Amino acid sequence: MPKISNKGIDMPASPIRKLTPFADQAKKDGKKIYHLNIGQPDIETPAGMLDALKNIDFKVWAYTASEGTASYRAKLASYYNKLNYNITPVDILVTNGGSEAITIAMQACLNPGEEIIIPEPFYANYNGFACSADIVVKPIMSYIETGFALPAIAEFEKLITSKTKAIAICNPNNPTGYLYSRQELEALRDLCIKHDLYLFSDEAYREFCYDGREFVSPMHLEGLEDHVVVFDTVSKRYSACGARIGCLITKNRELYQTALKFAQARLSPSLEGQIAGEAAVDTPDAYFQSVSKEYTARRDVLVNGLNKIDGVFCPNPGGAFYVVAKLPIDNADRFCQWMLEEFSYHGETVMMAPATGFYSTEGAGQNEVRLAYVLKNEDLLGALTCIEEGLKQYPGRTQE
Amino acid sequence: MPKISNKGIDMPASPIRKLTPFADQAKKDGKKIYHLNIGQPDIETPAGMLDALKNIDFKVWAYTASEGTASYRAKLASYYNKLNYNITPVDILVTNGGSEAITIAMQACLNPGEEIIIPEPFYANYNGFACSADIVVKPIMSYIETGFALPAIAEFEKLITSKTKAIAICNPNNPTGYLYSRQELEALRDLCIKHDLYLFSDEAYREFCYDGREFVSPMHLEGLEDHVVVFDTVSKRYSACGARIGCLITKNRELYQTALKFAQARLSPSLEGQIAGEAAVDTPDAYFQSVSKEYTARRDVLVNGLNKIDGVFCPNPGGAFYVVAKLPIDNADRFCQWMLEEFSYHGETVMMAPATGFYSTEGAGQNEVRLAYVLKNEDLLGALTCIEEGLKQYPGRTQE
Repeated sequence: MPKISNKGIDMPASPIRKLTPFADQAKKDGKKIYHLNIGQPDIETPAGMLDALKNIDFKVWAYTASEGTASYRAKLASYYNKLNYNITPVDILVTNGGSEAITIAMQACLNPGEEIIIPEPFYANYNGFACSADIVVKPIMSYIETGFALPAIAEFEKLITSKTKAIAICNPNNPTGYLYSRQELEALRDLCIKHDLYLFSDEAYREFCYDGREFVSPMHLEGLEDHVVVFDTVSKRYSACGARIGCLITKNRELYQTALKFAQARLSPSLEGQIAGEAAVDTPDAYFQSVSKEYTARRDVLVNGLNKIDGVFCPNPGGAFYVVAKLPIDNADRFCQWMLEEFSYHGETVMMAPATGFYSTEGAGQNEVRLAYVLKNEDLLGALTCIEEGLKQYPGRTQE
Repeated sequence: MPKISNKGIDMPASPIRKLTPFADQAKKDGKKIYHLNIGQPDIETPAGMLDALKNIDFKVWAYTASEGTASYRAKLASYYNKLNYNITPVDILVTNGGSEAITIAMQACLNPGEEIIIPEPFYANYNGFACSADIVVKPIMSYIETGFALPAIAEFEKLITSKTKAIAICNPNNPTGYLYSRQELEALRDLCIKHDLYLFSDEAYREFCYDGREFVSPMHLEGLEDHVVVFDTVSKRYSACGARIGCLITKNRELYQTALKFAQARLSPSLEGQIAGEAAVDTPDAYFQSVSKEYTARRDVLVNGLNKIDGVFCPNPGGAFYVVAKLPIDNADRFCQWMLEEFSYHGETVMMAPATGFYSTEGAGQNEVRLAYVLKNEDLLGALTCIEEGLKQYPGRTQE
């Protein structure tokens, strides 16, 4: 039997999926599970986007240009320019979801063995993309005590070597919900210019900023034009995760032309996804206002509820729809599995993502979990009750 | 300005797209262009597939399982089992087009620097996927004189080193249209077992076999269960190139689980594409009979027409919808560009793909072009007239 590649062996399995067999068994046992473990929103996709799909009128389901259709890119540019990104359609490369934008950027910017610095905890699939591209992730610790604010620039400086080629941020952050401030981004700008580094900005959660907070993108900062690569997706903004339409944005023409070669090899993004994506840009503001109101209320329920539980600490994040909470537990993987396998309260339990999966540093996040507030408030309240009861009964509870 | 990666520099641009600026200019100059350069069929997508798209009834456009939906994989398994592949849904991984199936297999099976042997001329994007995966393509020459039959096994043996990990075929072949015989596949099987190599079988054109010829897949051969990886796509079979739905099939469980990790990192294929793909499996036989009749007629018009032109030789291929023809010319790149830039006949010209782009060996294919018979017969006749007239006038015509 031929051997698997070393990369195939090293490729990380999804940390969240490790718990799936236990969730499946819990369901078989008749338990009701509150799923706070995944970023699949329950929010309805905008009607205009679904209607565009239902009203397709092509007879031949044809390839589009590798960079995306001209009309979708023009429409996207108008969306970004309302946000003062000051771009043109030729700066936009449409991709198979945000995931492909990230893999293309990693392949186009970094040589095998070169390094990318990412504040941790971070979106676990960055590890998979980095493994695919044979590049090295250098984590830099952010801390729950500061709400997972950007680590000090001096800490970044300590990690920068001749192999460092890029810094990546996710803003607002998955898994922490932290929204980077203008000041933090300006500090990153100065650092990237000083060391001539790319700045990757994953903005999947851009529309999810709460309490009137301002969203600032590296695209808003002068002097970074050749350094910034933005990753975006329709997945979260329009609750259209299954459309697999994202994009890569860069004003660096050489990088764009290079990324385009990778895009040409895989021919094109989906035609119907782009048609729906184009319609999505016309989603009325009322949709986002209603979504934002809903998520703010859910966040408040979850964060307040968590902080009321004895021994639990949860910062109040400014964006996205995740929180990372510190629990009085010995081991988050064990606790999350125990909640599915051993625990129930009135026949109910909660599925959470152990934060360990979002840290690259061995042993970090052992007493933290990520919770996605993608359920209605009454379900969040049910989940909170389960967490509170679970923590009382969990044999690995610690004293804090 | 940060540097582009070496891989980004080495990544090949699409050879076909090099001619695009000349085609654009020819259009601006008012010339009518017969596009025989690309594999985008003009055949209508089956109505049942488009209807499935129009009738979607989900409210939340959600992720699916990373390996594809259970119902689509079950349906696909029934399609393959009608063809005697003897597989189950767990052997199928749904991908973003056939392209992603190839990149995942290359990454999961080969280490950087390891080698894959591919008969040339071959689908040019294999070079791009190999570049992405940092693997080395070792071309093995097939010849127009034999209709591009499989090279002798002794020639493969000469290329096999300790770094050789896989052999890839495209069957029926793009760009040559050659359909491999059972005998050829059995010889490949023995070779792959002897040297413990993966056998990648790109079967995008499976349904396009003419003159009653039998399609044989490595999946039909005993003893190869752990070695075979099939790549497939809805693109050509259902004229649904823009759906970006493909799959990878392997009975090798270790390889499947490894490929799944790569699929998990990019989350999921598109939901609506899988819904339409599932409906496509119910496409009535009459559709394929009509398509096959149409393509057979087109092939006959094109191949007969080409062979009637002085100095031209074109083998009669058994499948796909491409031919590679030998022309009395000095340089295919120059000729194809000249046809767009300098030539027209009654205001018309032809866009062809120089075969050089499908050869890896430097200098091969200089007097060959690939023609896709994706146009109606009357257009093929117009194109043939242009080619005949063009060859008379082309300054780089050679004596044969």
